[in-house]
Amino acid sequence: MVPPPRTDRPWTYARSGVDRSQVSSALAVLLDQVTYRPPPSAGRLVDAPGHYAGLLRIGRETIAVTTDTVGTKTKLAAELGRWEEVGEDIVGVNVNDLASVGARTAGLVDTILCPRPDPEAFRGIGKGLNRGLRLARCSLLGGETAVVPEIVDGIDLGATAFGFFPRGRRPVLGASIRPGDRVLGIPSSGVHANGLTLVRRLLRERSVDLLRPRVGGDRPIGEEILTPTRIYSVVGDVLADSPATHGLAHLSGGGVRNLVRLHPKVGFVLDRWPEAPSLFRWLQQLGGLSDEEMFQTFNMGIGFVLVVGPARLAETRRRLARAGAPDAMEIGHVERGSGVSVPAYGLSFEGYS
Amino acid sequence: MVPPPRTDRPWTYARSGVDRSQVSSALAVLLDQVTYRPPPSAGRLVDAPGHYAGLLRIGRETIAVTTDTVGTKTKLAAELGRWEEVGEDIVGVNVNDLASVGARTAGLVDTILCPRPDPEAFRGIGKGLNRGLRLARCSLLGGETAVVPEIVDGIDLGATAFGFFPRGRRPVLGASIRPGDRVLGIPSSGVHANGLTLVRRLLRERSVDLLRPRVGGDRPIGEEILTPTRIYSVVGDVLADSPATHGLAHLSGGGVRNLVRLHPKVGFVLDRWPEAPSLFRWLQQLGGLSDEEMFQTFNMGIGFVLVVGPARLAETRRRLARAGAPDAMEIGHVERGSGVSVPAYGLSFEGYS
Repeated sequence: MVPPPRTDRPWTYARSGVDRSQVSSALAVLLDQVTYRPPPSAGRLVDAPGHYAGLLRIGRETIAVTTDTVGTKTKLAAELGRWEEVGEDIVGVNVNDLASVGARTAGLVDTILCPRPDPEAFRGIGKGLNRGLRLARCSLLGGETAVVPEIVDGIDLGATAFGFFPRGRRPVLGASIRPGDRVLGIPSSGVHANGLTLVRRLLRERSVDLLRPRVGGDRPIGEEILTPTRIYSVVGDVLADSPATHGLAHLSGGGVRNLVRLHPKVGFVLDRWPEAPSLFRWLQQLGGLSDEEMFQTFNMGIGFVLVVGPARLAETRRRLARAGAPDAMEIGHVERGSGVSVPAYGLSFEGYS
Repeated sequence: MVPPPRTDRPWTYARSGVDRSQVSSALAVLLDQVTYRPPPSAGRLVDAPGHYAGLLRIGRETIAVTTDTVGTKTKLAAELGRWEEVGEDIVGVNVNDLASVGARTAGLVDTILCPRPDPEAFRGIGKGLNRGLRLARCSLLGGETAVVPEIVDGIDLGATAFGFFPRGRRPVLGASIRPGDRVLGIPSSGVHANGLTLVRRLLRERSVDLLRPRVGGDRPIGEEILTPTRIYSVVGDVLADSPATHGLAHLSGGGVRNLVRLHPKVGFVLDRWPEAPSLFRWLQQLGGLSDEEMFQTFNMGIGFVLVVGPARLAETRRRLARAGAPDAMEIGHVERGSGVSVPAYGLSFEGYS
């Protein structure tokens, strides 16, 4: 049993220490300085501004590259002494972004920052990493282990993944999305690796015992939250070959706002959003979080989205089932307009951040 | 003026907190778990064990990938409030590794971990990053900015870089190195981004004022140490096309030991090693470091090495001069045997770590 929820002062992701708009402005300052564009002999950039992956034409191939860390989920792993889950997350958080541009995952390099090499943690990380690589059909191509006790308190895990486009396939960037398209969602396995700074703050503030199940939960809450990110890359790879697949999106940090990245000039109306899994409702109550904050911080039960032409809906669902996502469901449609709305909650979002 | 050197108890890299053999064993535990090999449809791994970059054959191209961080050099950047140098290092530490397999640099993604977004630091990092990208002829393909105050104290900077092999070129992995080959070295710009935990420890222990020049120095010592890693990637790219180029090596962490990575069954005899720049001798005195420790921790004045057939030595030097390295010099040769020796210092090293 956990203590009864309190809603005295609503929590937000920003209040927990992560202000996405401040990050965006600092990053804009950095990117303003990066004006250099190399000669074509060093590869040609494929324009995909704001998208999930960078694209570079090298010789006769286009490679997609993405990079991400597991964030503060490693703090929870350390508290519980369980490292397999975040080892697997290293893969998931990256390859799902590759799937969002329709790339087939090829390889990954990991980065581990630690205050000292801890063989037991490294064993767990390796085991989870291997599981993730198998689920994503991905090679480990190298990595960096930096022992930097002056920089890190605990372990930081990150990776860079890259993929390619099998012959005949082009990047799926959302340009062909049009009003009338249907939006399909594939369930998540939990909070994945997003919003963990907020989640951990709430657990601590409310003195939640990580080793006991929450109300309505069937596993210790710490373990439930640690569940690895579901890996959608094989599903994405299969669907990316169909001309009916107009857009693909990984709902990571930013939640449903991520859809705005696919097409700025259509409106995504998520009017069939399924009831959020009880974990999310429990977290919402725990912190007195608004629906808006929940939908722009967490995946709220849907981790990956496909936008397809309406005539191919049934066929797409059959292909999804065969590719490992029989639980995909229709969650909305595309209209004229802009932004993302979730009518049942009275929410609308205009930008990605 | 700095305080007089003391040599009471010799310093080592391990004593400063970085024990390379402990890191290797923990990493071995992790890698033991990673047994999965994907199907060929996800790209074919090119075998280059222990080398500087991972190689993957994708469609009709071979992609080289490498990842590294700037390490604790960011701590010095923070103390001095100077971020351009380490921004440039993000590029150097990675693209020099790509050059070591003969790849042409194509693109890079960066990772910034910080306790809070700091626009002034980000501006400096962006400026240095841009300079590095220009020197390496490299595109910025994306990046990750993680605000993780619970994980980092200060800023961590890392990146992953990608390269490829222009048509007709094969990876240069050292297999063609043979006794009689000549070893050429290109000078470094300073300590680059290696051994900084030790350097900073020595500076602190000896109460060195970072804002004043050392004996024999012409700039404040903090600034001198912060000098960005020299970027060798364009030089490496030019030389990699010649069949006379048998091996290439970036002397980063591990110093001259890095040569062992090129070929386990020849001996690299560095009998023409130039006098180490006075910065290294000053650091050695400061910590009472042994020659062995110096040569396996720092680059000792040579940051990049080429192994070439003896008949093509003069031609290679002309090409090096045209490619931006007129300061390249002969530093040794290859014999039957194994390992790396520096006879003037009575040193021999058998393995990489």
